[in-house]
Amino acid sequence: MNLFDALADQKAGDRIATAALLEHLCFNEQGLIPAIAQQQGTGEVLMMAWMNAASIATTLSTGQVCYWSRSRQQFWRKGESSGNTQKLITMHTDCDGDTLLLQVDQQGPACHTNRRSCFFIEIDQEQSHITANPQ
Amino acid sequence: MNLFDALADQKAGDRIATAALLEHLCFNEQGLIPAIAQQQGTGEVLMMAWMNAASIATTLSTGQVCYWSRSRQQFWRKGESSGNTQKLITMHTDCDGDTLLLQVDQQGPACHTNRRSCFFIEIDQEQSHITANPQ
Repeated sequence: MNLFDALADQKAGDRIATAALLEHLCFNEQGLIPAIAQQQGTGEVLMMAWMNAASIATTLSTGQVCYWSRSRQQFWRKGESSGNTQKLITMHTDCDGDTLLLQVDQQGPACHTNRRSCFFIEIDQEQSHITANPQ
Repeated sequence: MNLFDALADQKAGDRIATAALLEHLCFNEQGLIPAIAQQQGTGEVLMMAWMNAASIATTLSTGQVCYWSRSRQQFWRKGESSGNTQKLITMHTDCDGDTLLLQVDQQGPACHTNRRSCFFIEIDQEQSHITANPQ
């Protein structure tokens, strides 16, 4: 039985060793898993980026969110150059272990355009539009 | 100049034709883009799944969320068999056009385990645990 099929039958509060869970996460062909960052409290979805096993371990051990940059092929310690850090509050995975959801405390803008969230383009049927200005 | 670089310089309220925007979305090698579903009002992140160009068009035209099922290689009209539909409220894309964020109104559980959200496994440093029961 797949680990995640087994977890689906468990109840709130039931535990599993993190090492075993991480071994069964579903990484893609590049060894990556998508991670959604959501601001604690407001619930605003800030961004989506990618992690590998090492950046997950770094994020859990340091409490500061560390992604894997696909364009630069290196660790991306969020805010290391900009100062706009993401403090990890909680990390969840989903029912089939192929996505992460991070509750974070984001300092300043999460987006490289200096907007709070990367999701500032609303797509409507005919006309799309910009929904936020840089901070 | 990349379309999304140009959009970054625009201000709230500025418009672009949706047809042009959709042409420049960044699909992966399988022609897919990740879509995050978030419950309107509560902000709860319910699930992450994948869309292709046709399922985006269907979602926008019908107002009901339609994903692309990677396992079944077919359209996945959310709730078609379970009745747990997702009504589309808004669709956003992000600063580089490689992720979608859907504000939805989810009927019943979003997760195949009958939990409201798919993200019911919290990963802590040593011990992880289940955070929600089926409805």
